[in-house]
Amino acid sequence: MDIKKKVEELALTLPECPVPLAAYVPATRFGNTIIVSGQLPSVKGDFSAYTGTIPTELPAEKATEAARICLLNNIAAAMTQLQHGETLRLVQMQGFVQSAPDFHEQPAVLNGASDLAVQILGEAGKHARTAVGVSALPKNAAVEISCTFEAIPEQVQFTGRMNWIEG
Amino acid sequence: MDIKKKVEELALTLPECPVPLAAYVPATRFGNTIIVSGQLPSVKGDFSAYTGTIPTELPAEKATEAARICLLNNIAAAMTQLQHGETLRLVQMQGFVQSAPDFHEQPAVLNGASDLAVQILGEAGKHARTAVGVSALPKNAAVEISCTFEAIPEQVQFTGRMNWIEG
Amino acid sequence: MDIKKKVEELALTLPECPVPLAAYVPATRFGNTIIVSGQLPSVKGDFSAYTGTIPTELPAEKATEAARICLLNNIAAAMTQLQHGETLRLVQMQGFVQSAPDFHEQPAVLNGASDLAVQILGEAGKHARTAVGVSALPKNAAVEISCTFEAIPEQVQFTGRMNWIEG
Repeated sequence: MDIKKKVEELALTLPECPVPLAAYVPATRFGNTIIVSGQLPSVKGDFSAYTGTIPTELPAEKATEAARICLLNNIAAAMTQLQHGETLRLVQMQGFVQSAPDFHEQPAVLNGASDLAVQILGEAGKHARTAVGVSALPKNAAVEISCTFEAIPEQVQFTGRMNWIEG
Repeated sequence: MDIKKKVEELALTLPECPVPLAAYVPATRFGNTIIVSGQLPSVKGDFSAYTGTIPTELPAEKATEAARICLLNNIAAAMTQLQHGETLRLVQMQGFVQSAPDFHEQPAVLNGASDLAVQILGEAGKHARTAVGVSALPKNAAVEISCTFEAIPEQVQFTGRMNWIEG
Repeated sequence: MDIKKKVEELALTLPECPVPLAAYVPATRFGNTIIVSGQLPSVKGDFSAYTGTIPTELPAEKATEAARICLLNNIAAAMTQLQHGETLRLVQMQGFVQSAPDFHEQPAVLNGASDLAVQILGEAGKHARTAVGVSALPKNAAVEISCTFEAIPEQVQFTGRMNWIEG
């Protein structure tokens, strides 16, 4: 799978699809639209590294890291909905940052996720985004991100010259 | 209508489609996608039973009840968009809980709605979910939930043997 | 373009599509669905006129004005995704109001945007809406609005009698 390979080229690891915290599923698909449940910055089920309010309890730089992890968790969940020969296009990212009332750098925090999306998916990673600061997130998480993807056909990758056309 | 019957089997009542608080409509449909406006826990237009911040002004258990009412209001609004022979599949739930900054059990609150969705819609009730805690909701409501549904064909319910196949 | 003309009839100016604050795009389209990034009440890139928490730092009336500007910015961004012969139908508005914990008039604030949507788009401006109060928005903005549109064929406008039908 192309996405998995790209993630590894970036020296990252695509996680297992995270287990929901409750009575819902990680992602749903209708037609070619894939909606992912809000993902927290959990690493192998561990939520402890990225908790607290930004910036009073956790610095903004750590929240940017957290946003990257949320994005990877979104991709992992979305990939469970792909069929053979399909890949992901990110169409929307909704990001919620657990913020002190006077913290307004939510866009900088979410850039961790947005930049990584483009690194992994290329042109298909360019997305519409909503960035909001909220007072409380589940598990005291610093960031929560929910993405909507479109399932698109995998592009044929031409790595050499097309011989048949030269005939 | 199957959904109405199922709601009644659960000893609940499907409400009338709630009247919007302002210049918008309860739900829109484009193609087979139905988007419902954020629903508050109003019962016959009365918002008073489920107001306040969780858990300082209203206990979490009451908020879970409120989430169930929000879900019923979402279903009632979505059903206005169905055509003959169609039923609802819940694809996404966005839940906002009016939370004190140190309250992080939004998933437990929203399980009231998620569990009820599966009780009413069965497999078609399994959804992606986003749970967020916010500082202030309209009407001082404890919970607000906005759902996205897919209109799907009603399944034929075989309650007996198919005689023609025995021929 | 019909929308541009309608905006001018209302003595308003359709802005240039706002430049994103970070690593994302103003709007994405898949099929006929257009999703716009969360828009702030910026006027020609200037965010200063509509900042602060409602109502302690900025009165609710100013926030209603801000909501109108957010809606115009949403329309400007969505129009970049239209093809020849298409126009916009607003299907969903998600509105976030930077609110003091005891402010619950988010619907009144967002009516600035909802009413204007119907003035500009007519029947195609009637939308589902979610109104939420949050503690902190990017740039200390008073309001943030993200809209989902459907691209629909422009209606033929009959302004006179159809001669051919009269034989």
